[in-house]
Amino acid sequence: MIKKYTSGKPIETEAVVKEYKAKPIEELPLKNHTEGEHFIIEMELQKEDIVYGLGEAPRGINKRGWVYESFCSDDPFHTETKSSLYGAHNFIIIASEKPYGIFIDFPSKIRWDIGYSKESEVQITITNQNFDIYVIEGSTPAEIVKEFRGAIGESYIPPYWAFGYQQSRWSYPDKNAVDKVIEGYKEAEIPLECVYLDIDYMDSYKDFTVDEAKFPDFKEYVAEKKAEGIHLIPIIDAGVKKAEGYEIYEEGKEKGYFCKKSDGSEFEGGVWPGICGFPDFMRKEVREWFGSKYKLLTEAGIDGFWNDMNEPAIFYSTEGLEKALEKAVSLKGENLDLSKFFGLKDTFLGLSNSPEDYASIYHTINGEQVCHNLVHNIYGANMTKSAGEYFEKEYGKEKILMFSRASYIGAHRTSGIWFGDNHSWWSHILLNLKMLPSANMCGFLYCGADLGGFNENASRDLVLRFLALGVFTPLMRNHSALGTREQECYNFENTKDFKDIIEVRYRLIPYLYETFKKASKNNEMMFRPLSFDYPHDKIARECETQLMLGEECMICPVYEQNVNGRTVYLPEDMTYVKLSGKEITTKKMKKGINYIEVALNEVPLFIKSDKQIPIYAPAMRTTQIDTTTKEMIG
Amino acid sequence: MIKKYTSGKPIETEAVVKEYKAKPIEELPLKNHTEGEHFIIEMELQKEDIVYGLGEAPRGINKRGWVYESFCSDDPFHTETKSSLYGAHNFIIIASEKPYGIFIDFPSKIRWDIGYSKESEVQITITNQNFDIYVIEGSTPAEIVKEFRGAIGESYIPPYWAFGYQQSRWSYPDKNAVDKVIEGYKEAEIPLECVYLDIDYMDSYKDFTVDEAKFPDFKEYVAEKKAEGIHLIPIIDAGVKKAEGYEIYEEGKEKGYFCKKSDGSEFEGGVWPGICGFPDFMRKEVREWFGSKYKLLTEAGIDGFWNDMNEPAIFYSTEGLEKALEKAVSLKGENLDLSKFFGLKDTFLGLSNSPEDYASIYHTINGEQVCHNLVHNIYGANMTKSAGEYFEKEYGKEKILMFSRASYIGAHRTSGIWFGDNHSWWSHILLNLKMLPSANMCGFLYCGADLGGFNENASRDLVLRFLALGVFTPLMRNHSALGTREQECYNFENTKDFKDIIEVRYRLIPYLYETFKKASKNNEMMFRPLSFDYPHDKIARECETQLMLGEECMICPVYEQNVNGRTVYLPEDMTYVKLSGKEITTKKMKKGINYIEVALNEVPLFIKSDKQIPIYAPAMRTTQIDTTTKEMIG
Repeated sequence: MIKKYTSGKPIETEAVVKEYKAKPIEELPLKNHTEGEHFIIEMELQKEDIVYGLGEAPRGINKRGWVYESFCSDDPFHTETKSSLYGAHNFIIIASEKPYGIFIDFPSKIRWDIGYSKESEVQITITNQNFDIYVIEGSTPAEIVKEFRGAIGESYIPPYWAFGYQQSRWSYPDKNAVDKVIEGYKEAEIPLECVYLDIDYMDSYKDFTVDEAKFPDFKEYVAEKKAEGIHLIPIIDAGVKKAEGYEIYEEGKEKGYFCKKSDGSEFEGGVWPGICGFPDFMRKEVREWFGSKYKLLTEAGIDGFWNDMNEPAIFYSTEGLEKALEKAVSLKGENLDLSKFFGLKDTFLGLSNSPEDYASIYHTINGEQVCHNLVHNIYGANMTKSAGEYFEKEYGKEKILMFSRASYIGAHRTSGIWFGDNHSWWSHILLNLKMLPSANMCGFLYCGADLGGFNENASRDLVLRFLALGVFTPLMRNHSALGTREQECYNFENTKDFKDIIEVRYRLIPYLYETFKKASKNNEMMFRPLSFDYPHDKIARECETQLMLGEECMICPVYEQNVNGRTVYLPEDMTYVKLSGKEITTKKMKKGINYIEVALNEVPLFIKSDKQIPIYAPAMRTTQIDTTTKEMIG
Repeated sequence: MIKKYTSGKPIETEAVVKEYKAKPIEELPLKNHTEGEHFIIEMELQKEDIVYGLGEAPRGINKRGWVYESFCSDDPFHTETKSSLYGAHNFIIIASEKPYGIFIDFPSKIRWDIGYSKESEVQITITNQNFDIYVIEGSTPAEIVKEFRGAIGESYIPPYWAFGYQQSRWSYPDKNAVDKVIEGYKEAEIPLECVYLDIDYMDSYKDFTVDEAKFPDFKEYVAEKKAEGIHLIPIIDAGVKKAEGYEIYEEGKEKGYFCKKSDGSEFEGGVWPGICGFPDFMRKEVREWFGSKYKLLTEAGIDGFWNDMNEPAIFYSTEGLEKALEKAVSLKGENLDLSKFFGLKDTFLGLSNSPEDYASIYHTINGEQVCHNLVHNIYGANMTKSAGEYFEKEYGKEKILMFSRASYIGAHRTSGIWFGDNHSWWSHILLNLKMLPSANMCGFLYCGADLGGFNENASRDLVLRFLALGVFTPLMRNHSALGTREQECYNFENTKDFKDIIEVRYRLIPYLYETFKKASKNNEMMFRPLSFDYPHDKIARECETQLMLGEECMICPVYEQNVNGRTVYLPEDMTYVKLSGKEITTKKMKKGINYIEVALNEVPLFIKSDKQIPIYAPAMRTTQIDTTTKEMIG
């Protein structure tokens, strides 16, 4: 049961698709008060209550004991003490004796103090008084999720091939680099489905352009790769390079499609291409205009995209940089004391994604100028919707792969997300695992993290263990940053281990794809915390290193270095299945805590004792999976 | 058995106290070659070999799978992908079928590639050809440690009271703030032994001064606190403020005691006090001079110190800052492209602890000018030795508490270390645990991490769980940074839980102190990896979330949020002891994997089935522990 309460005049976010009759906020059945501009909700927590939700956010599946902020942030250090990542997913469930969920439909900042200041209280601060709140009741967390997901509409389903193994890097700058990747995988006999084009494929980082020198005859090249079963997936950034003669910028400028400053002039921010204009994605006509530009690439045969830098990430604004330089100039020759030195250093450090810059950006909504801060959290989502809606209209559903870095609930209907610029940290294997059910609750089913870790160097064993989790994530992509160790599987010793892991993915794709589709169609989660399925089992309730997958499975990746296995908790009798290339070993195991051995080339999987799942012969491409012959395991 | 091999003319570090007849490097029984200036050693690893060592370093107890650098670094982000922390501890053990250890006595940079580039190989790069290598043989890792520790001399033993509970913060700036802390603990009835004075107690951050306005009648105040059983522990930084009329600076300058630049002028670097001179701790007379200055505080009744910023940390040099400002000025008015923008940002970011600055510093060794890079790793150790040697001479052994941030093997004879500026991260509970045996191997017994975490905000439960590990670490200190949540126990809800944890410490102090002293006298480790004691137990071998303590115990802190307990592996039958304030519950448990419940106010401890340990009544100060009445538990 969902009830909607409205305060003031909310800005339309298109998060909810079902119609609910709104009650006035005064009837909200949650303790609340206002403090200046802020609307504050207080909810009591009992000692054993679990708080789920917030989608793509730091820390655990149980969100208790920290302060989160809904504020889409380009922050490449996903440490425990961060409060925000790239998405703003304002849905939580209080799993108390009488569980309930709330969704706050509000595109500006929200602060969630979940038992941090006071252990027995959730305190939510909504930063102005124009919002909708949906209160969702149900007898279990799973029921609440289903009800909520029904309200926000069916989750995006990508093409089947998007379940194949994908290789990325910042950057494969040209045709030769891409061919080298494909060749590397081919020689190592490791399956591969997609190769990503990060920012360097473009002409001077101009959206929807391809550098002819790097990719001559791009259309033919795309067709040639597709004939090999390889999809090329280019990146699209939010900022449009300010450049004379660049048609898209000139057209956007002429039509007044870019965000403004308070004086009506264009806001200019520096991103990869240098100074950019930022399309005002709050406007339907701008979304349609920008969305239609993807055609420049789809007409070249491209059938998948990733949207980046759309929080939006702004390295600096013209004004901010000017001020910083002035400060530096004024200090020249002075004997700086500590506070002046740190003041100067912080000025340069603070140039990127600065609150001052965000506050200086204006959008046009229904003809009115609206400060960016009020709609910050739907900027990236609206960019991605502009593409997703274009694709659906032009090509139909399930045809184009689309996922985004920034997101807001509602974008889950037209795209997936990836979990952004993580690190080659062992702890990020677990962070990836923990984000999956949280994202699923909020409608994001097609998702995954950069396997092997994006930032800094990865050890071989880390990449293998990360991939062994990635075998189960809908988006299975290995991605790494400029300047880090080359992370393509064929660049490591003994590539057979990598082949053994990735082949398991291909053997499971039909099962994973069906499980995924079912979750989308039925408004269910593909990945669930163990506590959803075993709410009265005290060990299962607090287990955050394993997940339930579909109706049949439990996954439990190895997430530590230099170990030959891990402990795993079985909340009921299950079959332990070890998968490695063509090898399958199964072993019945009893409820309880067990130690399992898992070699670097093995994928551990548990199947409930009364269930089985289908497995197929290994294949090099999704198109080559022979679905006529399956084996049932479990 | 230890064999010493010498290459070139090593710089004296005083790490090794026993005399060994050196063989020429050509006889080194390890595969090696030179590459330019570098001397490179290659050692083979078998699949199941464990590599121990490197003391205070990132990542696991088993160092395999990463690249480390011996290079004392002021780096407050102790993430997995760092290669160096504050200490340089060049001792490793290859625990193969025929185990051996090596210690490289070399005060400049060493790179340790431990199975990262090639899984089956350790590759050590010594960055020039003047060094000693000691190869240590023994039948077990423990035997190798004992042999090595015998070579480097007995570990520092602090005064007994240094085992009490200690409270720190950057900063308690004045008398009132200190009194408030003492009062807060008193009211909450939580034991307390020391309160720390971070940088703000000084007059303008000048070493060995006390700001009279903040601490009027300092000597009386120290005496008054001591009468209450509270020790005040001031910080001492490496840099000496350049200030006219500041006696220590003027004296150091007059005598030419500060580090130079290549042109013979003084090197000037900015730290807390602004521009500083850096005492040339390579010179004996400078060490004696600096060490004797501690008297200014010991004469005021101070009996404990912590030495900081002695890697040395340099925020900027006059030259570096000048160059950065010039760069900024030159770019003013230009339309910056991305590379220029990032170039500028990186220039300001790169001002601190810059390689250029380090390379520009010169020391005087035996009358010769020696570039800082060649002795970087003993700079902080020598600072601390200057103090420790003075204390021993003036007051005798075990009288003054002394620990340092930067360190090198050898400094373990006169001081402890703390593990530097960690974070309020759950993962740093485990990092703390993992560093303990590694530090012990290298001689550092008196050590500990900032409990609750130094940087960023801590949740209440994190502080409790961190403290529950800290109950066992010789240095049990809660410390937090400027601008973070107040982390003193009395500032949280329900202080009784904190009392319950810290009282356990006091009940165990006589046992912990004896265990500590025994480890020092016998050249043994106080904390050992489980693999030392159970080398053939495959689960124990890879367990890095538990440690053996002394001859009797195993510790296993809870290191995750929102859990009521944890799984623990018992390599043999043991007694599970849960300690909480006055409460003790014991339970016999069988060898194997078990789940144990541990509440936030409980300290879990395992005692071997044939052992017992003494426990005493709770006390508010170490002096009040009644050692005449003990209970044996186990």
